[in-house]
Amino acid sequence: MKALDWKRGHVEMSHGAGGRAMAQLVEAFVEAFDNPLLALQEDCATFAAPQGRMAMTTDAFVVSPLFFPGGDIGKLAICGTVNDIAMGGARPLYLSASFILEEGFALSQLRAIVDSMAHTAKEAGVRIVAGDTKVVERHKADGLFIITTGIGQVETPLVLGASQVKPGDAVLLSGSIGEHGIALLSARELLGFEAHVHSDCACLHGLTQRMLDSGAQLRFMRDATRGGVAAILNEVARAAGVGVFVQESAIAVSQPVAAACALLGMEALEVANEGKLVAICPPEDAPRLLKAMQHHPLGEKASLIGHIEEGPRGQVRMQLAFGSCRVVPWPLGEQLPRIC
Amino acid sequence: MKALDWKRGHVEMSHGAGGRAMAQLVEAFVEAFDNPLLALQEDCATFAAPQGRMAMTTDAFVVSPLFFPGGDIGKLAICGTVNDIAMGGARPLYLSASFILEEGFALSQLRAIVDSMAHTAKEAGVRIVAGDTKVVERHKADGLFIITTGIGQVETPLVLGASQVKPGDAVLLSGSIGEHGIALLSARELLGFEAHVHSDCACLHGLTQRMLDSGAQLRFMRDATRGGVAAILNEVARAAGVGVFVQESAIAVSQPVAAACALLGMEALEVANEGKLVAICPPEDAPRLLKAMQHHPLGEKASLIGHIEEGPRGQVRMQLAFGSCRVVPWPLGEQLPRIC
Repeated sequence: MKALDWKRGHVEMSHGAGGRAMAQLVEAFVEAFDNPLLALQEDCATFAAPQGRMAMTTDAFVVSPLFFPGGDIGKLAICGTVNDIAMGGARPLYLSASFILEEGFALSQLRAIVDSMAHTAKEAGVRIVAGDTKVVERHKADGLFIITTGIGQVETPLVLGASQVKPGDAVLLSGSIGEHGIALLSARELLGFEAHVHSDCACLHGLTQRMLDSGAQLRFMRDATRGGVAAILNEVARAAGVGVFVQESAIAVSQPVAAACALLGMEALEVANEGKLVAICPPEDAPRLLKAMQHHPLGEKASLIGHIEEGPRGQVRMQLAFGSCRVVPWPLGEQLPRIC
Repeated sequence: MKALDWKRGHVEMSHGAGGRAMAQLVEAFVEAFDNPLLALQEDCATFAAPQGRMAMTTDAFVVSPLFFPGGDIGKLAICGTVNDIAMGGARPLYLSASFILEEGFALSQLRAIVDSMAHTAKEAGVRIVAGDTKVVERHKADGLFIITTGIGQVETPLVLGASQVKPGDAVLLSGSIGEHGIALLSARELLGFEAHVHSDCACLHGLTQRMLDSGAQLRFMRDATRGGVAAILNEVARAAGVGVFVQESAIAVSQPVAAACALLGMEALEVANEGKLVAICPPEDAPRLLKAMQHHPLGEKASLIGHIEEGPRGQVRMQLAFGSCRVVPWPLGEQLPRIC
């Protein structure tokens, strides 16, 4: 059997069929993800369990296009799952990665994506210990889907969750919003101008660790992905049976993102991020939490954007820059499909 | 927003977009998978970590068609991941489930599949604690893909793996082979006759527990999925640098499977199973291991099919029913794409 041609070759049905052809492809993944647990190539990886409590999360990535300013599906697949673990107050440890490949997908693109995953995982200090590869016929997928599942060790005694949120609590945001969604839009060439916006795609576990280390009594953390900040605030309002009140002027939106939103009639608050989080804590802890966030590179532009109120229950309201107030609705869906 | 119409409705792009429409769909999943960890609907589930060593595995399921004699993609997604955990000598505990849905997919089919997953998970005693849902446009997927990741607790001190296998060891097979693959073929109506073969799709952790409890010094277990028994034996031969010798007459093949294979020019040894395993142990432990397997409903037809030899290294040989001997090659790929 001939060697894989990573420059000019393409994915074939046999690469997902459990035989020698698949083994060739899997060898390349194992080499890129370089770690002794995966190298065993058993059906499951075994390792010492975390101590105490652990966290588990999964995400399927179907982003289109696969490469965009500031990242690619591989980087996104690592960051997205690392972030979900981090939002649970846990330290990400091990990841699994499943690949669904479309017949005919260029091996050169697959190589670039796998290398990006390996690089991002290494930087984040997580190990990809289990994997799977499937191939489907042309037009039965869209190039490549990646599904990552992560587990981590909970290292905080805090109980985090939307249901922990109480009236009076402070609402913090880690930085400027809307960059991932607008970068995706520009990559799809749906914009009539060159937007110069890069996705904010990043692993946030360093930032959340800094936040936990601050000693603030965190009640809730969530990364603002699909549905943006608007979706998260509405979920909190609904889950905790509270009102959420935010100040538009406190929410950072970069000039190019604001311009793109204005042009396209989009709400920056509803646009997806991949490296921004919303945190909620008691009001007295807000200053030190904010300071901790601002001392981390991924939280430099963190701000206090509002607070929790008794009511109106389930509703998010925003005081606009010019003084009046409006309801921020729960998005029906994302304006942009396949953002992650 | 109107309620989901589970009888006549279809998946829409908004069902994957992180807003209210998706929440509606997710609620239905949470209700079906009924457990308190998932019900919190946080980005990650947290729970007490297993003690000692743990196991982790992932699988993407792209089986076509979604429903087949003896099972469906939902049952398969639970059994497949439970089995990979079980093959590591571990007790399956928690699963995550990611769904990639094609726009236009019938909600009635989704409902049936989710109910099948819930039923299978309940029977297997595992909990689905994390999930994700994505929707892609028509012709960018094939109805539904499910990706499950499982974690479990390793409860045996044995180190299991292909590299543990030694010359002289006995090779056991838990039952008759080829049923899953032939059932799939018949469901695709590629057969010119009604095959009456049901997939053997089943969760094997009860059987493996019985095997571990027997006290036999197990060296290796693997469920014979893609590539069938032929792929597994070749992987062992390669990984352990040994020869594998098996007796054709000891390998159970049901009459309808044998007939279908003869008609289609297929090798039963290469056809996928979803409820059969190969086990390897020292020769002196084989009788009690075999007995333990035969006492479990899923191992009733277990048999000793051969043994490990010094060489020829990396090669699998089979003594045919009529006396002569042939090499069993490592399949290049599965003859049937999208078998799981």
